[in-house]
Amino acid sequence: MLESRTLIQVRFAETDMMGIVYHGSYIPWLEVGRTRLFEEFGFNYRKLHEAGYHVPVLDLSIKYLSPARYDDEVTVKTVVREKPGIRIKIEYEILRGDQLLVTARTQHAFINHAGAPTRPPADFLAACTRHFSGAG
Amino acid sequence: MLESRTLIQVRFAETDMMGIVYHGSYIPWLEVGRTRLFEEFGFNYRKLHEAGYHVPVLDLSIKYLSPARYDDEVTVKTVVREKPGIRIKIEYEILRGDQLLVTARTQHAFINHAGAPTRPPADFLAACTRHFSGAG
Amino acid sequence: MLESRTLIQVRFAETDMMGIVYHGSYIPWLEVGRTRLFEEFGFNYRKLHEAGYHVPVLDLSIKYLSPARYDDEVTVKTVVREKPGIRIKIEYEILRGDQLLVTARTQHAFINHAGAPTRPPADFLAACTRHFSGAG
Amino acid sequence: MLESRTLIQVRFAETDMMGIVYHGSYIPWLEVGRTRLFEEFGFNYRKLHEAGYHVPVLDLSIKYLSPARYDDEVTVKTVVREKPGIRIKIEYEILRGDQLLVTARTQHAFINHAGAPTRPPADFLAACTRHFSGAG
Repeated sequence: MLESRTLIQVRFAETDMMGIVYHGSYIPWLEVGRTRLFEEFGFNYRKLHEAGYHVPVLDLSIKYLSPARYDDEVTVKTVVREKPGIRIKIEYEILRGDQLLVTARTQHAFINHAGAPTRPPADFLAACTRHFSGAG
Repeated sequence: MLESRTLIQVRFAETDMMGIVYHGSYIPWLEVGRTRLFEEFGFNYRKLHEAGYHVPVLDLSIKYLSPARYDDEVTVKTVVREKPGIRIKIEYEILRGDQLLVTARTQHAFINHAGAPTRPPADFLAACTRHFSGAG
Repeated sequence: MLESRTLIQVRFAETDMMGIVYHGSYIPWLEVGRTRLFEEFGFNYRKLHEAGYHVPVLDLSIKYLSPARYDDEVTVKTVVREKPGIRIKIEYEILRGDQLLVTARTQHAFINHAGAPTRPPADFLAACTRHFSGAG
Repeated sequence: MLESRTLIQVRFAETDMMGIVYHGSYIPWLEVGRTRLFEEFGFNYRKLHEAGYHVPVLDLSIKYLSPARYDDEVTVKTVVREKPGIRIKIEYEILRGDQLLVTARTQHAFINHAGAPTRPPADFLAACTRHFSGAG
């Protein structure tokens, strides 16, 4: 399992006229969470990008339990439970203190600059094998 | 069944450095689609809001099949298949011409200004009963 | 003078917890306005982009007179008064009916894909000369 | 003079198809900067808001010198030079290391929940007088 935590301070721009965080504003936070996860795992998203790899979102589901509000500090907990293969499955929890506000899942695959599916970089696969040894 | 179609022209602001529409930028388009659907069904979102009702998103799932690009004109097809009860289930297809780019689903419930679950407005329920007669 | 008008329907996503349109949400509307202006002048932004030209914003100023609200239909009036040279100066008015909500100005220059300043495309310059004849 | 610095890590969501930060994405960063400035000055924006005060942007100007890119860590330097009166003038510099990327200015005034201009809270005025003594 891979796990990472990152803090987000809610911006005014992220609220809507209901007085709470706009439901679409959580989506970039998931991205911040998995950027951090990749980083801590040794893979900088930007360098992957410069090396010709993209890791787009194939699908996303998100469940809103309780709203975040302006100026809240929330934690994005990002988890990869299964060894990534062709697909990478990522799970998220967004919390304010102990209170769970949002749960989400995304699925990803590596593609190249032309947009065609591609094998993950060799060092990424090797790192996954090392990390998830016995799991895959 | 309720169905509505609305056109969206992709803004530069909605793209990302992959050169395509940012995956989070589709979320407001779903909202534009269901606003139109409600409108055509006789219920203006803003008036509902002024009358003290919110219809927040409880959960959302979205599947990215093919990317939209800057300046594309896309169609958001919004459908309610089942008679709304406590929950309202909405399905979406985003198309460029005949090409299906994105599918999505959201679930909603009525809440009041205090954020507590509430029964939908009586005229909304009546309209649903009329429209989905025999279905619920 | 070049002038163009385009309609925008305010999205829920564009509001903030003050209950009005977030001040940053007007910025993409300016871009929608000038995209339309360029289009009507015979220059499609996307094609310019594909041909290797970008027309970035060098500076922007915006004045908020009265707020737009959710579901308002606003008009973005976009004007180029002076014949574009190295710089293109664009002015904007955002109106709801007759009421002026926002005024803005942007300045632009052509750059190439490498980010270096470049002369505008020859046909763009020719079109400017034709249109602003006697003015420049 | 009041001065504050805050760090921002550029999100993927904030980029556009030019491969750089979308020019409108800097606007929320200015807001993050002045939220911090107010906070350090003893005034929490959210508490002001809860107490019935808003501090909307009356006008904004921004100059783009060099683009920020995905994953950059930038500093938002926020400065109030003059003692706030009816108007509050705020200046900003956005830097990546020593490199100045963006300069900006905003002007603000206090309004109440009804949107009418109002005197700033008494403790805010008192704090300004203490801080800018001799300057106003």
